Order: sequence, then structure tokens, then C-alpha cells
Amino acid sequence: MSKKNIFYAQSGGVTAVINATACGLIEEARKQKAKIGKVYVGRNGILGALKQELYDTSKETAKAVAGLRHTPGGAFGSCRYKLKGLDEFKAQYERLIEVFDAYDIGYFFYNGGGDSQDTTHKMSLMAKKLNYPLTCIGLPKTVDNDLAVTDNCPGFGSVAKYVAVSIREAGLDVASMAETSTKVFIMEVMGRHAGWIAAAAGLAKEEAGSPPHVILLPEVRFNEKAFLKKVDGCVKQYGYCTIVVSEGVRNKDGTFLSDQGLTDAFGHAQLGGVAPVIAQLVKSKLGYKYHWAVADYLQRAARHIASKTDVDQAYALGQAGIKYALKGKSDIMLTIDRKPGKTYRWGIGEVALKKVANIEKAMPKKYISKDGFGITTACRNYLSPLIRGEDYPPYKNGLPQYTRLKKVLAPKKLSRDFDV
Amino acid sequence: MSKKNIFYAQSGGVTAVINATACGLIEEARKQKAKIGKVYVGRNGILGALKQELYDTSKETAKAVAGLRHTPGGAFGSCRYKLKGLDEFKAQYERLIEVFDAYDIGYFFYNGGGDSQDTTHKMSLMAKKLNYPLTCIGLPKTVDNDLAVTDNCPGFGSVAKYVAVSIREAGLDVASMAETSTKVFIMEVMGRHAGWIAAAAGLAKEEAGSPPHVILLPEVRFNEKAFLKKVDGCVKQYGYCTIVVSEGVRNKDGTFLSDQGLTDAFGHAQLGGVAPVIAQLVKSKLGYKYHWAVADYLQRAARHIASKTDVDQAYALGQAGIKYALKGKSDIMLTIDRKPGKTYRWGIGEVALKKVANIEKAMPKKYISKDGFGITTACRNYLSPLIRGEDYPPYKNGLPQYTRLKKVLAPKKLSRDFDV
Repeated sequence: MSKKNIFYAQSGGVTAVINATACGLIEEARKQKAKIGKVYVGRNGILGALKQELYDTSKETAKAVAGLRHTPGGAFGSCRYKLKGLDEFKAQYERLIEVFDAYDIGYFFYNGGGDSQDTTHKMSLMAKKLNYPLTCIGLPKTVDNDLAVTDNCPGFGSVAKYVAVSIREAGLDVASMAETSTKVFIMEVMGRHAGWIAAAAGLAKEEAGSPPHVILLPEVRFNEKAFLKKVDGCVKQYGYCTIVVSEGVRNKDGTFLSDQGLTDAFGHAQLGGVAPVIAQLVKSKLGYKYHWAVADYLQRAARHIASKTDVDQAYALGQAGIKYALKGKSDIMLTIDRKPGKTYRWGIGEVALKKVANIEKAMPKKYISKDGFGITTACRNYLSPLIRGEDYPPYKNGLPQYTRLKKVLAPKKLSRDFDV
Repeated sequence: MSKKNIFYAQSGGVTAVINATACGLIEEARKQKAKIGKVYVGRNGILGALKQELYDTSKETAKAVAGLRHTPGGAFGSCRYKLKGLDEFKAQYERLIEVFDAYDIGYFFYNGGGDSQDTTHKMSLMAKKLNYPLTCIGLPKTVDNDLAVTDNCPGFGSVAKYVAVSIREAGLDVASMAETSTKVFIMEVMGRHAGWIAAAAGLAKEEAGSPPHVILLPEVRFNEKAFLKKVDGCVKQYGYCTIVVSEGVRNKDGTFLSDQGLTDAFGHAQLGGVAPVIAQLVKSKLGYKYHWAVADYLQRAARHIASKTDVDQAYALGQAGIKYALKGKSDIMLTIDRKPGKTYRWGIGEVALKKVANIEKAMPKKYISKDGFGITTACRNYLSPLIRGEDYPPYKNGLPQYTRLKKVLAPKKLSRDFDV
């Protein structure tokens, strides 16, 4: 068996630990030098393959590669770019095969969410059709935690930890101020379709009355009356109220709460944020002084407060990718499997790509409390292990030292460019 | 000399390290048992004294008190409540003296910003006038870093670290996404009048082209044309642009940028946030895809990423408070003094309260870059030591373990209540 090269790419929204997966993959590939050639990484995801922009990771030092483990963002660039259907745009897949052939690629690793698993699957089908021997393995990643089959998704545990830590801290702040100032605090978190991230804030709750007091999930249609009653009750009972709201919360008619249809003086649509909408409601209907925060990218980039469990899993997936590939496995996505028993233990597993491509995993109903404003014990039991452990990056002069790669592009091998 | 008790209170917006000052004060007082009696802490700041709501800290275990060092927020409650002038509302000061007398208070420590130093000063004058022996010492605190004389303010270093870390992390995220998605990222930080916090984000910059690309300070009137040119230039040159904006940025006419005068369908004023205003501008004038975050309370409560320098200084101030009091010093605020020399060294000093009361320290012009969108080397040199060192709280099950006090109120000694 001749030594083949690897093509790896990062896809979709990046996370605090997607580079840890790249790190595991590159480090393991370097250990398997006898069997595996170079690791090329696509510049800006799959676009790098289409455009023949491949970073040659053999140019990076071991130290720089090791630093990927503690560096957030997508070190090689990611993309929001969905490959079209096989029949619809065959030329795209043919181009990929052509490029892979030119760079002697035998292994294709795609690190992303549901869409990316779909791409990996299509790539696998196409390679077979064109008789090009290509091992295709999907590596999971998404802060939304909405991939099917895998127990959880790398990237999620660290966001979960960030939001739980943040609401615990901000909650202490609000509690101090409530007597004469801010009584209601609203923190907006990511989650357009699934409420996993907002739910994770619930881990901060230590007892009845401690933050967060209210969680608004996209799975539960917004009930203004019940919400205001709950907030008012909290302020009256505990002196203050902290609210975690998912960006994807919807009104009863299915429209996003954040979409108020407002326009500014120039007729431009006002740029949402559901937190200010909730703040407005609280102020106008209850009259309480409020503060609000929108975590946005801060939450998914917060490597400084990453979950060790999350980092370990992300790294292990990259490492396992090489092992599965060398075992001849293909057309699969690797999964994180939770082992039975009271103590949390996990391992790496696999699933056929067609079983996860384009499928979204919603929060089960049994994870949402009866009143719709909190999480159940079952949910806590599921979420709690995912945020455990700290894994601090190295610091210099008070700031985290994130790795800086040389990012050397391999020379182009095909004369023809491709229009993406 | 008979043993007198202490009254300590927290005032104004709380920080990640104000409890460290309380910790230093209580621990040092416990060491000086021969000379000092109990440490009472006002419930919700000075209101606790007016209302005879005094927490008796002798009821707290050494472990609970030690935990204050790593616990954000104001553990005893703070207040936004300014005492009136001496002549205007003499009864208030007389009440305080009456309560202090009832609890045998010989030392008054007030932990807060410029307003609070004013209160401490007035308290000192009033005690003299009424012939009540009272040692009055102000302990500085404010995330805004705008107190006079002291080199810096406890609470600021940790916010500074938080914003610098956050923009570095989010910057890596945006850089990964820029090719096909988000090109401009805006992070709003605190600072209504002074730009110290926004300026601190500049510490994250490693070289020309690295985040943050643009800093908008309240000290510089917003110039839309120059701003848009700068943002567009960054996107064209580096592929993306990260912006840190101070909540207090103003238009040329002096109005806040965040105050757009918008109303919703019910005629309610739209609740600002300058970040969405900047986002709107970028979108409408340049057409770039954006994301925005508003850190709000998260930044000042972020004990998980506190600056060790900041924690050490906050603690030392509390500790020194006792020492200065026992030396018979009064009517002073303690300061953090930067010692000369290339290596950063600091000590505790003192200043007469009348020299700091109600005075705001603005950023010097020499700290702002010529184009108004960044900071100078002089500014970096000033700021850099303040964010150095990490001081992580203890964790359990993935979450920081913040101290929980018993908070036992001392029995009321005066039959008369006081209307606040």
C-alpha cells in the first residue's frame, strides 16, 4: 500500500476546540509516518480544495501544531459553503477528485456540523462513482449540540461552560445591585433552533432562587403573560431575576421574538438581538430596571474557559480519525459515545454518514421543566459531565498565547482554476 | 484605648474583586483582635447603616471569609445611593453617627468610586463636628478606572483583562469566518465617560492587522466618515475588521450614539446598546456581514478570568485599611502607587479625601493614537501590568465555587427606624 496524503478541512461556525481536533489529527498522522503522507488542510474549508489552496502542515513545527489544542477559532479558515447535490453540480465533485488526485490525497476528513456530514457523504458516493479510492470520514463539531447519534458535539461543552459560568457570575453582580438599581438581567445566547446552550446555563443553579431564574428556549413558544408573571414573582421573592434567552425564541405565531419589524430613520431593518426585546418588555410591563448582555461570538470563542472534557474529546476525535482511516473505515462520522453507569465515561464510536447528514437533534421534552422556564434533573445529569474540568491556555503578560502557524500554501499542481 | 468596632460597606457598581478588598480587611482585622473589635458590614452599602442592617462578620467561618477573595459581585449587597450635602440633610449624617455609636463603631471604611469618597469625606467632617471619634478611610473601587491620584482602581484590571482576552478570542473566530460570512465584529464595553476599558482591549493587538482593529472611545467624538473608511480599509487589507466600542461614544453634537431616538410600535423608547447602532451603520453603508456582542455585566463580574495583579491589589487595600486605621490615619483614601523603574512594582499610599472626592480622571490625550482609533505605546505601557497574572477560583463539577456567607444580621440596637 503506497502512502497517501490527507486532506482535512474545517467547516461552518468555528468553536473553541475545533483546532484541538485538527491538532489530534495532525499529531497522530505524524506518528503514523510509515503509513501516511502529508496532512494538507483546506484554506477556508472545502473552498481550499476547489481553489487549490492547500496548507502544507509539514511546514509547521511540533510546537505550533501542539498549540492548536489550546487555540480557538478555525486556524486554517472555515467556510459557510454548502456543496450542491450530486446531480445538480457534478462538476464541483469532479473538481475535488481532480485536486485530490493531483495532491495524491487518499483520505478526506471534514470537520463540521450536519451540513458538512452531508458533504462528506456525497464526497464518498462521488469517489466511488468515479472509481477514485478515497477514505471519507466526518469529524463532528458544532456548538449547537444538534448532531444526531453522537452523545454530544465537540464545541458545545465549552460554550455550555461559558454560559453557566457567566450567568453565575453576572447573577452575583445583579444580586448585589438589586436593592437600589438593576433588578432584572437578561443574557442572550446562541441557539437558533435548539435550546441546548441556553439549557446549559441551568447548570449554574444551586438551589431554588439562585440564577438563572428563567430560561427561554426555542423549543417552547414564548408566552408573554406566563413569562412576566414568573419574572415578577422572582423579583418579589428573591429581590432580582436573571434570564437566559436563546436567540431562537419564537412567538406563538412562529416569528422570532428578535424580529420586531422595526426600521430606523433610513428605513433599514433594526438589527435584532432578542435580549433588548425582552428588556423592553420587562421595563414597559413591570417597570423594573434592567441590564442585558449578548454574548455572541464571545461564547463560542472562549477558549480561556473551555471545558477539559470538551477539549479532550475534540482532540481524541482527530486522533481517532487517523486510526479509523488506517483500519479502512470510510463513509462514517465519528461519534462520542457515553458509556453506561453512574460515573461519566466516554469513548469514540462511528456511525454511517447517511444516518447523520442533515439531521438536527432537538432537546427532548423530558429535559424541559413543566413550566417551560427551566431544565429537569435528567437534563442536568446529561449536561453536567460535558462542562467538567478546566484546561487553561498558557498566558504571557496577562494574555492567552494562541498558536500562530506559518500557513504555507502548497504549490498549485493544476493549471486550471475553478469558479466557486 | 478601648477596642472599637468597624463598619465597612460596598458602594456603587460592583466588580470582580471588591470582595477581595472585604476579605483583606476582615482577615487583617481578625489578626488584630487585640486592638479591633467586630467587623460589621452594611447590608446594601450605606443603607445598611441608616436602616440598622449590619451583618456581623464574626459569625462567618475563616473559610467562608477566605472565599471572598475569589468571589465576584458584592457579597453584602451594594447600593446606588448618594448621601446629600451636610447642610441639606444633616439628619442623615446624625443618624449614621447615632447608629455607629449604638454599635460602638470607631472605624468607617467605604469601598467605592468618586461619589463614595465624597461620602466618606462628608462623614469625616460630620463626625468631627459632632465630636464623635471616627476614623474614616475610603477604599477605592471602580471598573471605570477614573479615580484621581491612585495609579489605577481595583476592579479595572480584571475588566481590562476580560475585554482584551475576549477580543483576541472573538478576533480569531471572525478571521476564520470572514471569507464567506462575518467580516465585521463589534464588541460593546462599559465606559460612559472614560475610555479606559475600551482602551484595554488594545492590549490584545499583537501587530498591525491583528484585533482589535478599531477602538471607539468616549474621548473622541464619532466621525462617521473616518470610521467607515477605516473599517473598509481593514476588511480590504486583512479580510476582516474587529471593533471595540465604548458605551459612551458620542456624536459630534454630543449626543450618545446609542441614543437613536427610536420607538417601538407601542411608542416605547428603543433600548440602546451602541453595538447594534454601529452594526447597522456598517451594514447599510458598507454592506458587510456583521456580528455584535454586548458584554455588559459579564465583563465586570468575570472573576474566572480576573487579573492576579488586580486581585492582589484589591486584597492589599483591605488589609492596609486596618493598618492605616491603627496608625490613626483618617479622612484619607488609600491609593495604589506605581513605583518608578522599568519593572512594574506597586505599593499602597494615601491621599486626602477632599483631593479625590467627586473627581473623574479622563484618559490623557497621549494615550490615544493620532487617528483616534487606537492606543499609543505609552498607553500599553501603563495598562499592560494591570492585567498580568491569572488567579483562578476553585472549581467543582466544572463551575467556579463562589463563597456563600451566612450573613447574620446583628440585632437592632435603636428602637427608632429611619426613613431612607
